Amino acid sequence: MDGFSFEVHGTCPDSDARRGTFTTPHGEMSTPAFMPVGTRGTVKGVQPRDLAQAGARMILANTLHLHLRPGEEIVRRLGGLHRFMNWDGPILTDSGGYQVFSMADISTIDDDGVTFKSIVDGDAVRFTPERVMDIQRDLGADVIMAFDHCPKDPHDRALVQAANDRTHHWLARCVTRWRENGGTDRGQALFGIVQGGVFDDLRKASVEAVCEHDLVGYAIGGVSVGEGREAMSDAVAAATPLLPADRPRYLMGVGTPRDFFDAVERGVDLFDCVTPTRHGRNAQAFTSRGRINLRNGRWKGCDEVLDPNCMSPALEGFSIGVLSHLCRANEMLGGMLVTLHNLYFFHQLMERMRGAIQDGNLAALRTKVLSECEGRA
Amino acid sequence: MDGFSFEVHGTCPDSDARRGTFTTPHGEMSTPAFMPVGTRGTVKGVQPRDLAQAGARMILANTLHLHLRPGEEIVRRLGGLHRFMNWDGPILTDSGGYQVFSMADISTIDDDGVTFKSIVDGDAVRFTPERVMDIQRDLGADVIMAFDHCPKDPHDRALVQAANDRTHHWLARCVTRWRENGGTDRGQALFGIVQGGVFDDLRKASVEAVCEHDLVGYAIGGVSVGEGREAMSDAVAAATPLLPADRPRYLMGVGTPRDFFDAVERGVDLFDCVTPTRHGRNAQAFTSRGRINLRNGRWKGCDEVLDPNCMSPALEGFSIGVLSHLCRANEMLGGMLVTLHNLYFFHQLMERMRGAIQDGNLAALRTKVLSECEGRA
Repeated sequence: MDGFSFEVHGTCPDSDARRGTFTTPHGEMSTPAFMPVGTRGTVKGVQPRDLAQAGARMILANTLHLHLRPGEEIVRRLGGLHRFMNWDGPILTDSGGYQVFSMADISTIDDDGVTFKSIVDGDAVRFTPERVMDIQRDLGADVIMAFDHCPKDPHDRALVQAANDRTHHWLARCVTRWRENGGTDRGQALFGIVQGGVFDDLRKASVEAVCEHDLVGYAIGGVSVGEGREAMSDAVAAATPLLPADRPRYLMGVGTPRDFFDAVERGVDLFDCVTPTRHGRNAQAFTSRGRINLRNGRWKGCDEVLDPNCMSPALEGFSIGVLSHLCRANEMLGGMLVTLHNLYFFHQLMERMRGAIQDGNLAALRTKVLSECEGRA
Repeated sequence: MDGFSFEVHGTCPDSDARRGTFTTPHGEMSTPAFMPVGTRGTVKGVQPRDLAQAGARMILANTLHLHLRPGEEIVRRLGGLHRFMNWDGPILTDSGGYQVFSMADISTIDDDGVTFKSIVDGDAVRFTPERVMDIQRDLGADVIMAFDHCPKDPHDRALVQAANDRTHHWLARCVTRWRENGGTDRGQALFGIVQGGVFDDLRKASVEAVCEHDLVGYAIGGVSVGEGREAMSDAVAAATPLLPADRPRYLMGVGTPRDFFDAVERGVDLFDCVTPTRHGRNAQAFTSRGRINLRNGRWKGCDEVLDPNCMSPALEGFSIGVLSHLCRANEMLGGMLVTLHNLYFFHQLMERMRGAIQDGNLAALRTKVLSECEGRA
C-alpha cells in the first residue's frame, strides 16, 4: 500500500480508544483526528494558512459538489485537488453518496447507479460507482470514498437492507475500478463505507461484507442522519469490534465533543463535520465554558477573551465584545474569526484526547470536557 | 501638536507631487498613502494581520456607523478604537457628515445640526458638531474629522454656498469642542474639511475659511459624489495651492489609480476609498493587466497567478482559475482573497508613486500604470 500506513501506538485501559498515526502520500497525522470540511474546495471563510494554524492536518472536499462546479477536469487542469485547495497536507474526498441521497426528491436510484438534477444548472447527472471512482481519481485526493447508498430513513429495515445490498455490490465495482485506475500505486487509497442503519445485525453484516475487501481504511456511514445520539452510539458499537484493528476507522459526518468521546472510546480514529465551520458562521462559539451565541446582547461590552483555556492564535487581541459586535453587524470578519476559533477548539480537543489516551485517563477528560463545554455560558 | 507632525521630504520637478511622513501617536506613515475603509470597525473580510501584510498603515472607521452600533460607549469600554479594531497603527474616523447627507431623504438639517433615522433601529438620532466631536473623542482615533455639510448636488450653487457657510460655522464649533476635549494633548488631531462643490470661487473661499483654523491637516470633501473626473480634478486644483504646504492634504472618498495620479500631482497626500474592498468582494481584481472580473467563465481553467507583477502574499499558491471558482461559487474565500489582492495592489501603487516622486519620474509612472491597469484583460 504505497505511501499509506496506519500504526496504533497504544490503547486505553478502560475503553477501546486508541492513539495512532495515519500516513498518506501528503504526510502523516496523529489520530484520533478531526477533519474540517471544504465541500467546494474551500473550508468556508478560512485561508489555508489559517487552517493549518488552527491545527488541521487532513481536510475534506466533496466529489459531487466539485463535479458540478468547476468539474473534475478543471481541477485536474489546475494541478489537482491539493493545488486547487492550496493545501499540502492530506485530503479526503467524500464520494457524494450522502449528498445524492439527501437530495432524494430530485434523484432516482437503480441498481446500476443514480440520476439526479444538478443543483448548479438543473442538468441531469448520472453517478455510477465507476464514474465516482473516475471523478475522484481526477480530483486527486489522498483518500477517496466508495460510492455507497445511504438510506434516508435508518429505521426502515427493508430500505436499510436494500441499501446494504446495493452498497456492497457497488463497493465491489468501486474496488475494481479503483484498482484499474492504479489504486494506491497512484497515491490514492480507497475507504469502504459500512451501512446498516440502526439495526445491529445489518450493521454487522455490512462490516463483514465491506471488510471482505482489503482496504486502507473503513468508514461508518449512514449515521448522524437524525437517528439520535444513542442509536448512533449503538451503530458504532456494533461496527467497530468487527473492523480490523490495524486500519483507520472513520465515523462520517460526526459531530460534537460528546459524539467524539462516545466514538473514540469505541475505537474510532477519524471524524469530519461541518459543526465548527457552520456554527462559526452563525456566531456560535464552542468554548470551555459552554456554547456561546455571540449575537446575544449580553456580550456587547464584554472585554474578556472568548476562551481563556483555548486561545486560538487567530483571535489574539479580539475581545468577546468585539466578536459580538462583528457578528451582530453581520460583518464577514465575525464568522471568519469564530470559525477559526471553533476549528482550533476542535483540534485542541482531539489533541487532549490523544494525550489522555496516552496517559490512560480518557474517562477523566471526558467528564471534565463535557461538564464544561455542554453548559451554556 | 503633541505626537503629530508632517514632514515633506521632496517634491516633483514637473508637478506639485510631494513625498512626506505623517506622524501620529500610533506611528508614522509615508505619503502619498491610501487608507483602507473599515466602516463598522472592520475592513470587510480582512483580518488585521492580513491588512498589515497588504501594506496598510492608517485605516478608517466611521463615526456614524459606530455610533449607531455598537455605540461609542461600548467601544470606549472595550478599550477604544485601536483595541476594538485590533489595529496598533494610526486610525482616522470620518465624521459621518457624508453619510448623514447621502441619506438625505431620512435626515433633516438645520443650522444647529442634523436629525436622521438610525439605519439600525429606526430611532431618531441628533448630530451636532459638538456631539460628533464627543463621539469621536470616545471612539479614540488618532485623527478625527470635522462635522461638515456635504451638499448633495455639487452643481447647485445656492446649495453649495449654504453648505459652505454651514461647514465653516460648524468647523468653528468643532474646533472649540475638540480643544475643550483636550485637542492634540489627548492624542487626537482634528482635520478640517473643505467644501465648495464644482465652483472654483466657492472652493477657494472654503479653503480660506477652513485654513483660518490652525489644524494638523486638511481634507477636501464633497468630491467623488458624481461630479465626474474632470470636475473632481478641477476641485482639487482649486483647493491645493491654497492649502498650507506643511500640512497633510486628504482627498476624501477617492478612488482609482487615475484619480490618485491626478490628485498626487496636485499635492494630495492621503486617500481613502471602498474601491479595493467593495470590488474585491464583487470578484473584481485590479491588476497590472487591467481590471479582471473573476466571475467571467474565461478564467475557469486559467493556471496563471492573478498578477505576476504584483504578487500579494495572501494569494500565494492560488491560481486565477481557483480564484474564479471561489468567486463563481460565492465562496467567502473568493471575496476575502481578491480584497487582499486589491489592497496590496493599491498600497504597492502608492509605494511606487512615492518612489517615482523621489526619483522625479512620476509622469512616466503615470503613463505606464494607467496604460496597464485601465485596460480590460
